[in-house]
Amino acid sequence: MPDAASKTIAVVGTGTVGASWAALFLACGHDVAATDPAPDAETRLRAFVERARPQLAALGHTGDGALRFVADVEQAVATADFVQENAPEDENLKRGLLARIDAAAPPHAIVAASTSALLRSRIVAECHTPRRHIVAHPFNPPHLLPLVEILGEDDDVVARACAFYRSLGRHPIVLRKETPGHIANRLTAALYREAVSLVEQGVASVADIDAALCQGPGLRWAIMGPHLTYHLGGGAGGIRGYLDHLGPSQERRWASLGTPRLTEDVKAAIAAGVEDETKGASMAELEAWRDRLLVDILRLKQSG
Amino acid sequence: MPDAASKTIAVVGTGTVGASWAALFLACGHDVAATDPAPDAETRLRAFVERARPQLAALGHTGDGALRFVADVEQAVATADFVQENAPEDENLKRGLLARIDAAAPPHAIVAASTSALLRSRIVAECHTPRRHIVAHPFNPPHLLPLVEILGEDDDVVARACAFYRSLGRHPIVLRKETPGHIANRLTAALYREAVSLVEQGVASVADIDAALCQGPGLRWAIMGPHLTYHLGGGAGGIRGYLDHLGPSQERRWASLGTPRLTEDVKAAIAAGVEDETKGASMAELEAWRDRLLVDILRLKQSG
Repeated sequence: MPDAASKTIAVVGTGTVGASWAALFLACGHDVAATDPAPDAETRLRAFVERARPQLAALGHTGDGALRFVADVEQAVATADFVQENAPEDENLKRGLLARIDAAAPPHAIVAASTSALLRSRIVAECHTPRRHIVAHPFNPPHLLPLVEILGEDDDVVARACAFYRSLGRHPIVLRKETPGHIANRLTAALYREAVSLVEQGVASVADIDAALCQGPGLRWAIMGPHLTYHLGGGAGGIRGYLDHLGPSQERRWASLGTPRLTEDVKAAIAAGVEDETKGASMAELEAWRDRLLVDILRLKQSG
Repeated sequence: MPDAASKTIAVVGTGTVGASWAALFLACGHDVAATDPAPDAETRLRAFVERARPQLAALGHTGDGALRFVADVEQAVATADFVQENAPEDENLKRGLLARIDAAAPPHAIVAASTSALLRSRIVAECHTPRRHIVAHPFNPPHLLPLVEILGEDDDVVARACAFYRSLGRHPIVLRKETPGHIANRLTAALYREAVSLVEQGVASVADIDAALCQGPGLRWAIMGPHLTYHLGGGAGGIRGYLDHLGPSQERRWASLGTPRLTEDVKAAIAAGVEDETKGASMAELEAWRDRLLVDILRLKQSG
């Protein structure tokens, strides 16, 4: 991957995640060669890029790279400096696709898989040059949320990929070990298990359980992670004081957490609760509201 | 509790939580009678109220209630319309204190305990009029974070308390069942267990685990809770579609979550990681940064 300011980036798969990546790359001034087998993929991609443009401009990304939509994977990656792959989460499909990309991409290109749930070691198994392949898992929507979870086997490739994502205003973090779900989706799964348990046990309504997060700890977690939060909760002793004094009560709380099942009854209770909570708001209205607040919160964090 | 706009509120215990409550009540135009046995309590309380005043003004709370600091609990509650109790988390201490409050407060006053970890049924055990006693657990810092978790045994008392907290710009939620840790601290404990497990297993640095939350899902959770987040992640099918299609993978992820212990080695790794993460920033600097961002995010949410 050359260090030139403007790169050519292949976006393989332009569903929700791929389209969002493409919008970000373009707004950061990079050229994008995109491909996707869906019949209306190009139209949907171009519409998404236009919708995302003012959000990205509000965050300071006012570049205007060129977007080409091409017929197949080999054409998309042939001149790429960087490849972002976003195919469906199917291990066999992804293994074959990465092998095709590996065979067709220039030797200097880094190949990044957006996978949230598959293991890197399994999906790169058929690549001739696996060391240039990384997992680079974003969080939805990737053009707004800064997190990118990186896993590779070559420290230099990982370092260059991190530098590239940082140049896009992303916040890359590095996994030292392959772990199903990486980090963020494991944290969210742990929290969601307890949220479902509270629904299952009838402790509160779905709307009140949601509010317990976004009117309380969720507000702090937009600013800092759990360790730093407890550091501030520990008074003068910081995290060390917190763990010494309140560690035993954390361990007791952990032992009391629920282990729910997503039975049909529980799923129905959750769905009915979400229906109450959203009061008829459409998905498009909810997404627009979320994205507007996300952009505004990200702007605050940029300046503060 | 009369419906008059301005009330007299007793704040019993003026440590971190009590001082923050007092600042909020005063800025909402209520008079406060406060008491705390610590020798420098009045000085620290008045200093906190002054520090919080501009933050509360930025959120639209520009009232100016009168603050009296009195010598004991009986004096504090004698003329109170509402009592907010914030003594240390010691069951015996709190049981005795609530009985004293119950004996001395006017019959119409609601008595709210800020307890995060004790069970209401146990701490009201010596009160003659327990039905007017509720748990009203805020999140730190209470003058900024809207969440208040309410548990009572009299629906009318609960409804009146919720209306009162709403009038202060709080977001009360109602627990239908007594549960150790209520809701928010159970959700945070569940997430923290997995965060500690990832440290224990060496999956990433403490700073990167923290960033995995606050650069990703934490940003969404400042806006919406986990159920609504998955509703938006479910595409056209919403939460029902999400649970039907991705419920099984949630359950598999749940089964894979860690069950760490806070051993001395783990605590040392966390403390060293937080030290790296904070890069020498003092507790006061971190708190000022957090509170400035919290105020700004809350203002965004008020308008949007």
